[in-house]
Amino acid sequence: MIDIDRLLGLAPVIPVLVVDDVAHARPLAQALVAGGLTVLEVTLRTPAALAVIAEMAKVPGAIVGAGSVLSPDDLAAATSAGARFIVSPGLTPKLGEAAIAAGLPFLPGVATAGEVLGAIEMGFSRLKFFPATAAGGLPTLRALAAPFGNVRFCPTGGITAATAPDWLTEPMVACVGGSWIAARGDTDWAAIEARAHAAAALKARGAA
Amino acid sequence: MIDIDRLLGLAPVIPVLVVDDVAHARPLAQALVAGGLTVLEVTLRTPAALAVIAEMAKVPGAIVGAGSVLSPDDLAAATSAGARFIVSPGLTPKLGEAAIAAGLPFLPGVATAGEVLGAIEMGFSRLKFFPATAAGGLPTLRALAAPFGNVRFCPTGGITAATAPDWLTEPMVACVGGSWIAARGDTDWAAIEARAHAAAALKARGAA
Amino acid sequence: MIDIDRLLGLAPVIPVLVVDDVAHARPLAQALVAGGLTVLEVTLRTPAALAVIAEMAKVPGAIVGAGSVLSPDDLAAATSAGARFIVSPGLTPKLGEAAIAAGLPFLPGVATAGEVLGAIEMGFSRLKFFPATAAGGLPTLRALAAPFGNVRFCPTGGITAATAPDWLTEPMVACVGGSWIAARGDTDWAAIEARAHAAAALKARGAA
Repeated sequence: MIDIDRLLGLAPVIPVLVVDDVAHARPLAQALVAGGLTVLEVTLRTPAALAVIAEMAKVPGAIVGAGSVLSPDDLAAATSAGARFIVSPGLTPKLGEAAIAAGLPFLPGVATAGEVLGAIEMGFSRLKFFPATAAGGLPTLRALAAPFGNVRFCPTGGITAATAPDWLTEPMVACVGGSWIAARGDTDWAAIEARAHAAAALKARGAA
Repeated sequence: MIDIDRLLGLAPVIPVLVVDDVAHARPLAQALVAGGLTVLEVTLRTPAALAVIAEMAKVPGAIVGAGSVLSPDDLAAATSAGARFIVSPGLTPKLGEAAIAAGLPFLPGVATAGEVLGAIEMGFSRLKFFPATAAGGLPTLRALAAPFGNVRFCPTGGITAATAPDWLTEPMVACVGGSWIAARGDTDWAAIEARAHAAAALKARGAA
Repeated sequence: MIDIDRLLGLAPVIPVLVVDDVAHARPLAQALVAGGLTVLEVTLRTPAALAVIAEMAKVPGAIVGAGSVLSPDDLAAATSAGARFIVSPGLTPKLGEAAIAAGLPFLPGVATAGEVLGAIEMGFSRLKFFPATAAGGLPTLRALAAPFGNVRFCPTGGITAATAPDWLTEPMVACVGGSWIAARGDTDWAAIEARAHAAAALKARGAA
């Protein structure tokens, strides 16, 4: 199992992917890895998602995880498909326990200080701040993070190529999640690789 | 017991009512029903609320529920008064279990993805997004709803006649809660009926 | 043990303090008390915090509590250091139970209606609204507080000398937390006393 700090430190941006066609899995992952983004989050929002994870996992250099994991069942299915890390929009005790039992790096979503506190109690201190922009953006994350010196965040939701650098200059930001690298249905692999290349060149101040 | 999807599909707007005088209960409910809004939420924020529910429940065509339900005790009192559905600003396991035991349609409030996840775990997938405007409005709901394909929302809080149509065009919005139809203390039944009529003419894209 | 309503009524503003140097503890507390602010929150964000609490507790007239309390261990350490009240950014059942067992006034942070509901279930009805400004400011607090008639709030986070009066005119606001009185590292005791004096002259509408 890869350590979560190492995982989050592999690239400043984790592409958040919604893939409908399993035939797109390999060329998409290849474009992202070629651009320098090796940590890929495939959301379980499409019927094809599990097959996409399995296909992408075969791409050399790709570390493929599952996002939008909502339940222990989702988590088990993602693990069986070959997911190497798990991302969820929020956290419940049941989901947290399943993640611990699965032994995979787990990045649960939080939006309030109470949710951060609940995550810490379960042993999670690397957290997705979600939805990052809609929940108030950087001012909210700064306020939220202030009492939690040891927590690092991966803000996700509404972040763009233009705003990612601002997030990444914060000391509590390990990386960001982003859907701008490869939008749903986009099959222009060269353009995706170019955007991945630009994203991979960013620096995250809070990376381990 | 009415199915919650049928309940939320009966009208695009649920009037959220704060009633101080039980003498207003019947004419208020009659005006709303005459205007086409048949699903009425009476908040337990006034000493008269339970008596208001009992009175309104006698109005033909009205389906009267209780809002601002904060505890199992509130829930039991509302049920005894004749409430046919229950709305709460938030959800705790204790309150959710009481709602399941009561066997009434239950619309618990959520504001974060973690809260949506907790609701789903308890079996609730029709949720009040509260406070809808203050919590970030439509951009927040869109971001919040994205990972939860099967969840439908009834945004409530700060919605007006002017903004309701925008909310109702979203596919995840089953209906909205609104206090603009009948403000606290308003006894102009004709005006209330006119506003109800306008509200009832709206279409909710996410209605079942 | 001081009653929490009496505590929150002692001054309209609770200075939220981040102190790195224990040598600053006494003069800082003396300046604040001289200015009329007697309820002091020392955040456990610095290695010196516990020693600072112990030192400040010796200043006549000062009622010193601990903030940024994240766990039962933090709570025990703060109590041992002489903290007379406890503030946390959020609430979990474990932390709430530890606060009840400690028998100290406890002001847990909340940001959603579900969190308010969870706090009420544990017996807490005096709550920190955090992060006050980033979570949507006064409109959010007004919407959030509406269903909870008996709850009083101490909004904290991003409040300034300019905005404090607006918060304090709300009937559900017992007091506010503020870091503008004494910023981290500030040792201009006369200026701190002057700002404390101005803050102490404010009136909180929701004070008991």
